[in-house]
Amino acid sequence: MLTVTELGDSSVVLRRAEVADVPTIVQLLAADQLGAARDGVTTPDDLASYERAFHEIDRDPAHILMVAQSGPDVVGTLQLSFIPGLARHGALRAQIEAVRVADAWRGRGLGAAMMDWAMAEARRRGCALVQLTSDKSRSSAHRFYERLGFVASHEGMKLAL
Amino acid sequence: MLTVTELGDSSVVLRRAEVADVPTIVQLLAADQLGAARDGVTTPDDLASYERAFHEIDRDPAHILMVAQSGPDVVGTLQLSFIPGLARHGALRAQIEAVRVADAWRGRGLGAAMMDWAMAEARRRGCALVQLTSDKSRSSAHRFYERLGFVASHEGMKLAL
Repeated sequence: MLTVTELGDSSVVLRRAEVADVPTIVQLLAADQLGAARDGVTTPDDLASYERAFHEIDRDPAHILMVAQSGPDVVGTLQLSFIPGLARHGALRAQIEAVRVADAWRGRGLGAAMMDWAMAEARRRGCALVQLTSDKSRSSAHRFYERLGFVASHEGMKLAL
Repeated sequence: MLTVTELGDSSVVLRRAEVADVPTIVQLLAADQLGAARDGVTTPDDLASYERAFHEIDRDPAHILMVAQSGPDVVGTLQLSFIPGLARHGALRAQIEAVRVADAWRGRGLGAAMMDWAMAEARRRGCALVQLTSDKSRSSAHRFYERLGFVASHEGMKLAL
């Protein structure tokens, strides 16, 4: 699983994340306005939590943690998960979580390339549907997903335990 | 995994679904206004699709398809799935899909009992968050989830493949 995409005069590789990518992925999560309060590595225990989660994702073919790499730098990430269900004649659905693009790479088509990759992989696995939730404050993200064909048909409801 | 809950003068058992429950679960999905166009068993192939999906769910401990049974009747269902991720310090999240309560059982506390069961199971597995999406036309469902503590903080976006 490795895709090379050309964006302007840069080549970006889309590939499965490795454990060595975890600190950079966490930086991308924490660089985000809403993620800043929730994520970051300040102690070795923090890193251990993230690495534990990485291995849970990595060992299960129902999940793909993907990164976008330009030269030596990880500049984007998303997670794709596959969820079986009875509804819609037993349709498999794909779910996308934690989509992040480095600030310097915004507006250059990287997010769309990452999402195209995710939707192609979902089709390849026979999914009938791709779904995601996006915080209501992220209006530019909603326009981005709508341009890709997503419809904001549902309320995304969360409860912290 | 078997919980008995008392609702008025009825005992309802919450348990993991078995393959023999599939036709009744599909009836519950299809009885729903939005599900009517999407679900139902009219041919043996239909049933085979649902049973195939049932086995995918059943063999993976990351998913629990639950039914509520009163006497011999299945009167409610929901699916609970567990999704690892890096965000929020590597938090496991629980996702609830396909919540249905038989018409005759509405307004008797069954839905709340099913959701309480799901949230307790999510806590038991160490989830930091429970999430679901609900069609924007289902305003009474949104009030129901809000009474349980859910916040409609996100847009739920879907794309059919």
